[in-house]
Amino acid sequence: MLDRAVRIGMIGCGTQANVHFAGIKALGADQATVAAVCDLDDERLAAACQLWPAARAAKDYRDMLAPGDLDFVIVATMPNTHEAISLASLDAGACVLCEKPFMMNVAQAEAVLSKAEETGLQVQLGTNMRYMPSSRYLHDLVQGGTIGEPVFAKAWGCHDDPPVWGPHYHLATSGGGVLASTLVHTLDLAMWVGGSPKPLTVSAATRRLFPGKRGPKIDAAIHARYDAEDLISALVRFDNGAFYSLEGNWCSEKTDFHSFELTTTRATVTGEPFAVKVDVEGEIVDQTPQLDGDDDWFQSVHTQDATLIAQLRADEPWDMQDARQLLNLQKVVDACYESARTGREVVL
Amino acid sequence: MLDRAVRIGMIGCGTQANVHFAGIKALGADQATVAAVCDLDDERLAAACQLWPAARAAKDYRDMLAPGDLDFVIVATMPNTHEAISLASLDAGACVLCEKPFMMNVAQAEAVLSKAEETGLQVQLGTNMRYMPSSRYLHDLVQGGTIGEPVFAKAWGCHDDPPVWGPHYHLATSGGGVLASTLVHTLDLAMWVGGSPKPLTVSAATRRLFPGKRGPKIDAAIHARYDAEDLISALVRFDNGAFYSLEGNWCSEKTDFHSFELTTTRATVTGEPFAVKVDVEGEIVDQTPQLDGDDDWFQSVHTQDATLIAQLRADEPWDMQDARQLLNLQKVVDACYESARTGREVVL
Repeated sequence: MLDRAVRIGMIGCGTQANVHFAGIKALGADQATVAAVCDLDDERLAAACQLWPAARAAKDYRDMLAPGDLDFVIVATMPNTHEAISLASLDAGACVLCEKPFMMNVAQAEAVLSKAEETGLQVQLGTNMRYMPSSRYLHDLVQGGTIGEPVFAKAWGCHDDPPVWGPHYHLATSGGGVLASTLVHTLDLAMWVGGSPKPLTVSAATRRLFPGKRGPKIDAAIHARYDAEDLISALVRFDNGAFYSLEGNWCSEKTDFHSFELTTTRATVTGEPFAVKVDVEGEIVDQTPQLDGDDDWFQSVHTQDATLIAQLRADEPWDMQDARQLLNLQKVVDACYESARTGREVVL
Repeated sequence: MLDRAVRIGMIGCGTQANVHFAGIKALGADQATVAAVCDLDDERLAAACQLWPAARAAKDYRDMLAPGDLDFVIVATMPNTHEAISLASLDAGACVLCEKPFMMNVAQAEAVLSKAEETGLQVQLGTNMRYMPSSRYLHDLVQGGTIGEPVFAKAWGCHDDPPVWGPHYHLATSGGGVLASTLVHTLDLAMWVGGSPKPLTVSAATRRLFPGKRGPKIDAAIHARYDAEDLISALVRFDNGAFYSLEGNWCSEKTDFHSFELTTTRATVTGEPFAVKVDVEGEIVDQTPQLDGDDDWFQSVHTQDATLIAQLRADEPWDMQDARQLLNLQKVVDACYESARTGREVVL
């Protein structure tokens, strides 16, 4: 039991950090405070300091972590820095919430999770969509077993323009394009709602459509660095007999669709638009409930942070994601890229 | 040049045969006549004779073919009989239109195509959806090259109930469920519109959802024989670098969707609802034209038959499908089933 506010360090003060900042502010200073902020960019750092005048500021995360006074570090930088920052944060005694993609590969993920186990500290990947009311409802419904067993799922991450709020399109910093940087959210949901099965085989193919598509629309400075895949299709088999189809596209000609759908032996459930359709005596019955709260992205980040902070204060474990789930997600991502590179299915 | 009506033999006088009958009637007796009908079922045979009073009737296709006076045989039986009937029809000097699934496997398909080559007669698989105005438009558009190169396609065959007008759900007679019996139509379109590439790898997974789904709704007599897959997901890589995602489901909880969509380096085109969306200077522009004619199933069968009959009369080759396309389609179907059985990707 922590009888003071959780002391948070924010590493990386860009777009996603500002979503966290708003949520932490709303919790109140007795629950949590941002005690340290870090960014390489002067302007972003100054803006963060204005928001948190009591926070110490650093351009180097090692300087920021040195006093060892933080309970909780949020890593909101690009993935090429995630391993070093996460390891250093754990060494400095802080629990870590790391934004996605978690790490550049499974080996880095294993190193960080080992360190967490060694230090007894918590690590979670920023899978905030799990905290949406619809996601939690579907997770509990499927786990309850009343709509049968998971058989087939689809996870989509399709948008009509590449995301350019961060260099997700630049592999050396992002570690991956549409799959690792955006589709990973609904893939995580589809795996979590489906009971977190273990992946067995992965076959995937990828392509880059930019700048043949959307080229003239997107800032010229981005062109030279854009080298990530922005189209992917994959088939994944899991140890519970379920199979998943993945589709990601940053240059889709259709309206955005960023969702998942799971077919069980008795029903099909969909994240967005939220739907539960069940076979009842051979007829399809709509059993979609009305839920409290909404599935807003900002709200789900805030709910995630509030939950983690409350659990830190109560000295309870972070129970919405375990290391095995996190590793399996990273394994699917890694295997998709390996399969796309080799043109052959990867057997895990 | 044939200066008389084409003499047609119909083998199997069920649901699909009646679609053909209506189209042939509409052509007029100077173009084509059904000169012989064959069915094991007395009632169906009697109904066909009533429609074509001048036709000879037979319960055994060998008796029907014996006089050797037919120009054209339409094989509208279940697939377990397709190989023997097609070979006998070719031996009797008739060209063959065989309904899908073409054959039980690639070996049978090769035997029939070899016989066609040997006899100099034509064989076509009943891929009538190619004759829909939208399909032909999209084929010509993609082949014209103005919207770039094919990259990714999806073919769906999803319905909210299993088709029970024939025993497609019974493997020993159908050779395959949702993939071979229904999804094969849009898979053929997606491959044809995409330039008929050669399949390289196939990874697939299948499942049966009936009778857990739709069981109480469907006639009890069907239950004991229903043993086909009614759910499939697959990823196929082709030699032009394109990759296709397949989805078939006879017990879908969503509204029927039986269509295909092809993404090229500059556009995305969709069969149903018919759409052409092109990237023009980075913006998505709807270039869907208004087409003459409609995409009705009955109309496309009629157009197919009219085209084949006109070409037979003019002594022109059937040019809407070649043997290589037909074999590649059958190879993908076979490889999907093999991959589903083994749980591993098949390399062709």
